[in-house]
Amino acid sequence: MELVEMQNVTEVPLTPSAALTSLLNPKILAIVGASPKPGSFGGAVLRNLAKHYKGKVFPVNPQYSEVNAYRCYPSLAELPERPDCVGIAVPAHQVESVLLQAVACGIPSAIVFSSGFSEIGTDEGTLLQRRITDIATTHGIRVLGPNCTGMVNVRSGASCNILPSIKDLPMVPGDVGLVGQSGALGYVVFQAMHRGVGFSHLISTGNSCDVDIADLIDYLVDDPNTKAIASIFESVPNGRRLRTALERAFRAGKPVVIYKIGVTASGQKAALSHSGMLAGDAATYRALFERTGVIEVDTFEALLETAVFFSRVGKPSSSAIGIISGSGGSVVMAADKADKYGLCLPTPTPATVEALSQRLPAFASIANPADITAESIRDEELYGECVRIFADDPGFAGLAILMPSAHGEAAIRRAEGLDALASKIDKPLSLVWMNEWYEGIGSRVYDASRRISVFRSLDRCMHAYQFWFDYARRQALLSQEVSVLIAQDARDAARRYIQSFENASVLTEGEAKKLFEFYGIDVVPEVLCTTAAQAIAAAEKMGFPVVAKVQAAEIRHKSDVGGVKLSLRDAASVAQAYDEIMTAVQGFELQVEIAGISIQKMVPQGIEMIIGARQDPQFGPIVVFGFGGTQVEVLRDVAVGLAPISSAEVRNSLNGLRMRPLLDGLRGAMPSDIDHFVGLVTRVSELMNDLADEILEIDINPIILHARGGIAVDGLIVRQ
Amino acid sequence: MELVEMQNVTEVPLTPSAALTSLLNPKILAIVGASPKPGSFGGAVLRNLAKHYKGKVFPVNPQYSEVNAYRCYPSLAELPERPDCVGIAVPAHQVESVLLQAVACGIPSAIVFSSGFSEIGTDEGTLLQRRITDIATTHGIRVLGPNCTGMVNVRSGASCNILPSIKDLPMVPGDVGLVGQSGALGYVVFQAMHRGVGFSHLISTGNSCDVDIADLIDYLVDDPNTKAIASIFESVPNGRRLRTALERAFRAGKPVVIYKIGVTASGQKAALSHSGMLAGDAATYRALFERTGVIEVDTFEALLETAVFFSRVGKPSSSAIGIISGSGGSVVMAADKADKYGLCLPTPTPATVEALSQRLPAFASIANPADITAESIRDEELYGECVRIFADDPGFAGLAILMPSAHGEAAIRRAEGLDALASKIDKPLSLVWMNEWYEGIGSRVYDASRRISVFRSLDRCMHAYQFWFDYARRQALLSQEVSVLIAQDARDAARRYIQSFENASVLTEGEAKKLFEFYGIDVVPEVLCTTAAQAIAAAEKMGFPVVAKVQAAEIRHKSDVGGVKLSLRDAASVAQAYDEIMTAVQGFELQVEIAGISIQKMVPQGIEMIIGARQDPQFGPIVVFGFGGTQVEVLRDVAVGLAPISSAEVRNSLNGLRMRPLLDGLRGAMPSDIDHFVGLVTRVSELMNDLADEILEIDINPIILHARGGIAVDGLIVRQ
Repeated sequence: MELVEMQNVTEVPLTPSAALTSLLNPKILAIVGASPKPGSFGGAVLRNLAKHYKGKVFPVNPQYSEVNAYRCYPSLAELPERPDCVGIAVPAHQVESVLLQAVACGIPSAIVFSSGFSEIGTDEGTLLQRRITDIATTHGIRVLGPNCTGMVNVRSGASCNILPSIKDLPMVPGDVGLVGQSGALGYVVFQAMHRGVGFSHLISTGNSCDVDIADLIDYLVDDPNTKAIASIFESVPNGRRLRTALERAFRAGKPVVIYKIGVTASGQKAALSHSGMLAGDAATYRALFERTGVIEVDTFEALLETAVFFSRVGKPSSSAIGIISGSGGSVVMAADKADKYGLCLPTPTPATVEALSQRLPAFASIANPADITAESIRDEELYGECVRIFADDPGFAGLAILMPSAHGEAAIRRAEGLDALASKIDKPLSLVWMNEWYEGIGSRVYDASRRISVFRSLDRCMHAYQFWFDYARRQALLSQEVSVLIAQDARDAARRYIQSFENASVLTEGEAKKLFEFYGIDVVPEVLCTTAAQAIAAAEKMGFPVVAKVQAAEIRHKSDVGGVKLSLRDAASVAQAYDEIMTAVQGFELQVEIAGISIQKMVPQGIEMIIGARQDPQFGPIVVFGFGGTQVEVLRDVAVGLAPISSAEVRNSLNGLRMRPLLDGLRGAMPSDIDHFVGLVTRVSELMNDLADEILEIDINPIILHARGGIAVDGLIVRQ
Repeated sequence: MELVEMQNVTEVPLTPSAALTSLLNPKILAIVGASPKPGSFGGAVLRNLAKHYKGKVFPVNPQYSEVNAYRCYPSLAELPERPDCVGIAVPAHQVESVLLQAVACGIPSAIVFSSGFSEIGTDEGTLLQRRITDIATTHGIRVLGPNCTGMVNVRSGASCNILPSIKDLPMVPGDVGLVGQSGALGYVVFQAMHRGVGFSHLISTGNSCDVDIADLIDYLVDDPNTKAIASIFESVPNGRRLRTALERAFRAGKPVVIYKIGVTASGQKAALSHSGMLAGDAATYRALFERTGVIEVDTFEALLETAVFFSRVGKPSSSAIGIISGSGGSVVMAADKADKYGLCLPTPTPATVEALSQRLPAFASIANPADITAESIRDEELYGECVRIFADDPGFAGLAILMPSAHGEAAIRRAEGLDALASKIDKPLSLVWMNEWYEGIGSRVYDASRRISVFRSLDRCMHAYQFWFDYARRQALLSQEVSVLIAQDARDAARRYIQSFENASVLTEGEAKKLFEFYGIDVVPEVLCTTAAQAIAAAEKMGFPVVAKVQAAEIRHKSDVGGVKLSLRDAASVAQAYDEIMTAVQGFELQVEIAGISIQKMVPQGIEMIIGARQDPQFGPIVVFGFGGTQVEVLRDVAVGLAPISSAEVRNSLNGLRMRPLLDGLRGAMPSDIDHFVGLVTRVSELMNDLADEILEIDINPIILHARGGIAVDGLIVRQ
């Protein structure tokens, strides 16, 4: 399902156009290749439309005068009215000609169901697809597909889709718009309609020859019926367009929930630097999602539940929730899971406790989570009253109700009561269906509710609340401008400096450090020496202890080859280190050109951090930062962000790192200068952004962070 | 739900007794407190029995001559036959007298449904429960409860249970025995019978006054109808009995799947050492589960699915699986998840590829995971044939089939075909139902299958296979004896040595190291000095560089208070260090009694590890080992095991640590001496085990591990 020819797709700007509206909300549809034959794409589309669609449908096929009770036309040119969209279900090699006819008739959009294009991996398939793209680009007709199942607009019933069972689906209008590459994966989510869950759209892009995920997200941002967008995909043809669409969705406050599948390791293997290795494809997507507020779920099951949740939640009034249940065991579980997802569960206010105490037996536990006992479950009225009181507690931004109980008509009445209650409560009300009878009695009321969001997993519910608070926090970061710290003349000088290395693919440490200085990144002073005598003189001038390091563009990780000697405290040690390094590196790689050995002042101990950056082929410059040193690949405790990055975003991401407590000063150590580090990350991100055309990868590892300030002791730059 | 009075429960030995059989497979039942009243416990039990049970039922209640069409008796003494078990549904204060009557009648077992005992937290409740326990202990009657919902024996229909909806459940005999504390949580799992999933038993222990989870697991180990045991609980009254039952289950090869809820942090807060902090309650349970082969799931949803899986899998023939699907997108997801759970997906053999190629279109991807395309889905016969060919590949120990498709009667035929196929294939066949229509068409056939195991999550399926391979690996470790390395006279000397510290609660570093030496744990030689001059003399004798460290029993983490100076290279530095340490620690804690300053040889760099141990109140001596140093609390990269521990188990656990690759030698470093470290861990585990009555906590941090050998540079012992 990986998209073929990612780099060769023409960029169509994101302009929410009338053509997209024709495609996704058509009033008149034509189906070329319409057929009464069972198993044919054309036949399946017509049967789906016949069942659900109130708009006009014009089958087109010269072989028939009537198909499926619709009058059938011999060609697009002979239709009585101009359709908004044409569904194309003809063999691959005929698609081009049908599209050109559609263009000739002024039809603004098309859906190509046919397969046999780039997905089959042949030159011919690729060429056929390129021609469709060319038609779209040249004539402005918007084309969904090829090799797609099509789309369903739930409210209009425009089920222009080849999946034969769509005719048997109940069409439940709802708030989630679902877009994906694969028609099958989208459809099996859409089948939640059998449980009463509603949708606005189902759309599959297939090969994305023209209309892609970015277009669809962009369209749904403006769709009033879509309150949250859910998407599942492996790759997109153009990362920058996706970024633009996601940024617009985030600014508009329309939540986008994505399950990104297909984590490839190929990009990582080829990386030369730590940063390249740490910021593979998955990490870069994560950086994009972080910046654009995307709610990234990591299981298929979480996609719909989380999207439904986000279609209903609005903005949180605090960053805490209340959890209530009639079962003691479920309350213990919920406390575990709230802890796992870092959720705050404040104690109910005295007024809440007082009001509940009056209604509940003495052994009820009126805490948070609250166990209102099985007694309350047996009395629907009491139950509703207790939930209402608990929900009204001003400390909770949202409420999670745990529901293990599923038996008897009471379960339905209880559900109906909660649904009615939800409309009176001005905060999200989520229900966790905790029963192995997945569609047990009462569950349908919750599934079909337009106010309650249902989860069949405590983990997913607690995670959704974590996502919600995080979404709000990240939205606050949106207004944080990237502070431009670097003077223009320094930027210009840096560009001139790096361009002076005409053919060098890798800069030596000394060269890299010089570039860093233009951006105000403090580096350890060093003197490049080519004899032991020079090294001793340099060391004596700067004062012991010193460090000796080999300098050679081709040796990227110096300590791996015995090219670094630390803590040299006198002239004799420096001389010995000089000889030992020369012997070690010459023995290691005979062909290497050694610029010399640099002598640096030994930096006092501190926390070893890393800052790196790289140019991502899809999303442009990115920055990597976190805990560094020689163990960086083992620790893997770094964050990745799009460059340039704001201080607030760096700070937010740092807080998510596992070893973050180290910076607060552990075991009697002073706290580290986090502000300084944050400043360095923004500077490196500016550097990478400014010189994205010149630099492929940057590594500054380690940066030794102290209680005041910090200093880069090693650096590497790989050029484009 | 936390069990009250954990320490005061009398230990009943685990002897699979006739009494337990009477309790869990009764032929004749009496119900005291039987009543026709709706909402009464006694009435609910009778209605459940009337619906499902073919055995004899004797209601007992002096107020009625007939209840629910059963003849009712005035007292137990007047029954025509002796029941195997009596269900007791009378007020709490009457339970004792009913139990004594049962004893008088020779009834071997009872189930106490009544509440009002230790769970209400009053002295009276606790006392009433203690009396029941005393009766059980004194007279040998086995008592389940109080405050429990009872039990269901699915095959006999003995639904001696107060949950009123049990009468509406279809009784589906199956292979999973379900035991838990909470009746409600067990029951909502049991409701999977509505989907056709079968069970052998459902049993809730409630307050566990006598029969506990350990008894029930022990009973089910011998139950031929139970192929896997599923359990959910927060705590057990006696950890050692649980351990005994779990060990027996593991040796018998009967899988036990546990969801342990309620992760308390209280034990951790009180810990004095790193080991105590790192090995809290949850970690200790994990160590127990690790040793006893328990499959520990971490979500409620995983409990039943994983138990059903284990009830069907047998022993793996290899450590690799095959994954097959008709949908390209699902195949991409599966590859992600297999990678997440470290599963090996070998390429199919040429014979498999050849056989499938002949049947599938050219664009099918015959790899692993295999995408046999939507074409195959449309033709049930072709589909079954392809799955059969793939399953026969000798490289796969098991097969995961991804099933997104749910429409039409074909879905049922496909499911029936797979179920029939599963009986012909000699390896586990799991099906992942990937559809938001949870109970969609066809799913019931899979749920009700006695051969296929169904998952509604790819994660849970892949995780189950990981558990399976791990179970087999751990079973192989079972035969690894703990090697007794320590001579008896050294053990005796160690005991005499520690007993010589009569009142000391904490040993100084020097004292602790001396104890370690009895167990062959290498420590850095040190000289305790009380003047700067002594320190200089000691340093000059052992040779520079040296380390100076304060020695005071009350200073547990020396570097936190400025009590450690490293890399002292000459006499002047030693003198200065002596003064600085004295000033620092005296300023820090005025009351501290300082034994002196020890001078140690500076140990060359290496990997800093930690080994610790502690006495767990529930499970006895445990050992903690992994990556140490000052960052140990932040890294939290340690394993926990029961002491004593075998080398093989240490090695296996080490392999699961995040930073494990460090030991292989990173960035040009030599590999570390893992064998030596493993030996040290086993020695510390012996020490802790031998002196469990004397020692509360041990910390050896760091142990510097080198390419050859390793050495403990700091140590701490907290006494009982």
